[in-house]
Amino acid sequence: MKIGVIGAGAVGLYYGSLLQRAGHEVRFLLRRDYDAITRSGLTVTSPGGGFHLEQVRGFRDSRDMGTVDLVLVALKAFANQYLADMVRPLLGEHTALLTIQNGLGNEELLAEAFGGDRVLGGVAMIGVTRGEPGVVNHMALGSIRLGEFSGGLSRRSGQLAAMFTDAGVACTAVADLRKVRWEKLVWNIPFNGLCALTGQTPGRLLATPATRSLVAEIMDEVIAGGNAQGLSEPISREYGEEMLATTARHTGDYRPSMMVDRLEGRPLELEAIYRIPLRYAAQQGAAMVRVGMLHALLELGEPVQP
Amino acid sequence: MKIGVIGAGAVGLYYGSLLQRAGHEVRFLLRRDYDAITRSGLTVTSPGGGFHLEQVRGFRDSRDMGTVDLVLVALKAFANQYLADMVRPLLGEHTALLTIQNGLGNEELLAEAFGGDRVLGGVAMIGVTRGEPGVVNHMALGSIRLGEFSGGLSRRSGQLAAMFTDAGVACTAVADLRKVRWEKLVWNIPFNGLCALTGQTPGRLLATPATRSLVAEIMDEVIAGGNAQGLSEPISREYGEEMLATTARHTGDYRPSMMVDRLEGRPLELEAIYRIPLRYAAQQGAAMVRVGMLHALLELGEPVQP
Repeated sequence: MKIGVIGAGAVGLYYGSLLQRAGHEVRFLLRRDYDAITRSGLTVTSPGGGFHLEQVRGFRDSRDMGTVDLVLVALKAFANQYLADMVRPLLGEHTALLTIQNGLGNEELLAEAFGGDRVLGGVAMIGVTRGEPGVVNHMALGSIRLGEFSGGLSRRSGQLAAMFTDAGVACTAVADLRKVRWEKLVWNIPFNGLCALTGQTPGRLLATPATRSLVAEIMDEVIAGGNAQGLSEPISREYGEEMLATTARHTGDYRPSMMVDRLEGRPLELEAIYRIPLRYAAQQGAAMVRVGMLHALLELGEPVQP
Repeated sequence: MKIGVIGAGAVGLYYGSLLQRAGHEVRFLLRRDYDAITRSGLTVTSPGGGFHLEQVRGFRDSRDMGTVDLVLVALKAFANQYLADMVRPLLGEHTALLTIQNGLGNEELLAEAFGGDRVLGGVAMIGVTRGEPGVVNHMALGSIRLGEFSGGLSRRSGQLAAMFTDAGVACTAVADLRKVRWEKLVWNIPFNGLCALTGQTPGRLLATPATRSLVAEIMDEVIAGGNAQGLSEPISREYGEEMLATTARHTGDYRPSMMVDRLEGRPLELEAIYRIPLRYAAQQGAAMVRVGMLHALLELGEPVQP
């Protein structure tokens, strides 16, 4: 399969490299890592065993990439105003779009630009960061749940899940993409924001009783906000407790992407991870008071938009 | 009048120096500033005109201070476990105790140790910080409202209010001390905590729409928490709006005491300003959700108690 990866941060580079290793023809839109990767290839480190790809197809401009069968979108959501223009040159008649970006609103953006029939979304549970240019450090986890934007199970979503599975990524197709999006928010909303705000890791937040309780309370708010959307089945309270346990076990020392963004002076994905979920929840009468407070505190540190 | 000042931070030094300038015999329990003040006196800078006291009675140990007519308590509330022992040597038969410490629980502590009849509380609205040893910088405001711990107007509270007024401090005696304590919390709870947490000044918080709204929401929670205590008359919603306006006008650049404590690595007055108010509010069924979240975030940065 010909695959174009748009947004070659840690997540895009990681999954793209696994797909290339499995035999697919993968083309990466690169910026910071262009020189290093086109010269020396791409290295993935991982506790489960790393690997190196000698030859990687890198491009500086998506107009040079040609059409593909699948566009894998892993762009930071704060750059979404550029997304449609980056994707357009890659589209053939049957090209599918799979966005594995964080938060809500990404499928809607692609559907508006290119039609909802092309669009799938995926939720990646993964700890991965960029190292030196040309190096990606996989820390923990890595599974993907994906589904059609328009809902339901399709032949296409099953094929894409099989493709990832064959490449070594635990992947399942789901009928209710919105539910898994909200499930991911149960992790992202507390940990991304609290870690970015306080400069502390998830493990430190969970080791302090006051903030461990706060994380659990925020998770409960997000679960209630998601369940107010009329999902195919509700997210259980236990889901939050499992997330706490998984985090303490696997990703306590991991720096969530938003924490890294703040430490490195980049803007934060506030629209996708906070504002749109807050708006959707409020529209259904779910208040998410602590989530709103966290968003306000994160706003304080943001650069003023031009 | 013989006055002993316990807790010679910026607030204690400022009011004590005004009382000495007005002719009272003031004795200060000093620690950091002992050498500078006993050698060179005490300097107060102020936008309204500063002054210098050449001779200041400083002590390292309250057992050397002798008995006084009034003990003025301005100790940081996080050192309250030492307060009763510091105060005891100053007490004669009719000595009154006036605590102008922050938050709730301070009068209760003194009343338990020495009897409620001796105890008055005062709420200072002031922006003042310590400079070099021997220097106090008065930035803005300075009024005090004081009242009997046991409630009601007394001859004594009227005399103390007159004493402060004669010394140049706008001061009134109030019948309901609890109400003015909660009114002070309407300012202290949002600004002390948010400034300590974010490292930003009140002015910056008010200039950012998201955090300005958050401050107003927290003020509303504190007003509801106070009004659930059965005050003599409720605190009005407008009180919060006036606080916002006064802050923007007078103390936007001021660093609240808790922000200074955090910047200088001291513990925070979390018990008096957050935990006791949260407990009192919860006992009356007022939740103060945002206040609880702010407290949890402040707890995260605290040193572990031995």
